[in-house]
Amino acid sequence: MSEEPKKTERAPTQMRRTDIPPDTILIGKKPIMAYATAVMMHFNTGAKKLTIKARGRAISTAVDVAEVVNNRFFQSSLSKHVNLGTEIVGENQDARNVSTIEIVLERTK
Amino acid sequence: MSEEPKKTERAPTQMRRTDIPPDTILIGKKPIMAYATAVMMHFNTGAKKLTIKARGRAISTAVDVAEVVNNRFFQSSLSKHVNLGTEIVGENQDARNVSTIEIVLERTK
Repeated sequence: MSEEPKKTERAPTQMRRTDIPPDTILIGKKPIMAYATAVMMHFNTGAKKLTIKARGRAISTAVDVAEVVNNRFFQSSLSKHVNLGTEIVGENQDARNVSTIEIVLERTK
Repeated sequence: MSEEPKKTERAPTQMRRTDIPPDTILIGKKPIMAYATAVMMHFNTGAKKLTIKARGRAISTAVDVAEVVNNRFFQSSLSKHVNLGTEIVGENQDARNVSTIEIVLERTK
């Protein structure tokens, strides 16, 4: 922190990343398979549960990732639990609502 | 059918539309509010339940519609149940997987 005195106004990306718990994958603009691989690596460590999160246009990619992982690597044996929500993005005049999705994948075997 | 002898190869849009049950709204490329209005009209007829369906890129719009209706018109009182799935679109060489979403909205009061 003390090494970067210029970046005080905006929270650096690094700081926001630490907010994401280790059993969560945040979907952005990378190709579907990049995220699918990350999900597989997580399950290969022995984890039973994983949450995929996305907002806005990335929501459809999040669904793609969940479907690819479940159908291609788990023979459709994962249990899926989905939560929808709304977040306020931006401040003051730029504030707008953005839809969010949270897909909880759980190994059943 | 007999009036359109040229269009035998592809199923006409009209035919596919009749497959959609009356308590289902299929999300496409219209603006969010067009679908939100349709959802409201459906609930205003006294219906307690409605399913919003979408596939591919339209999935994020479907989530937007569900969130707008729930937050703006129902004070977040609707119950939401979400199913994800995969459909095969196209034939033979053009066949590809497309993710689908089904959001079941239900009035709780």
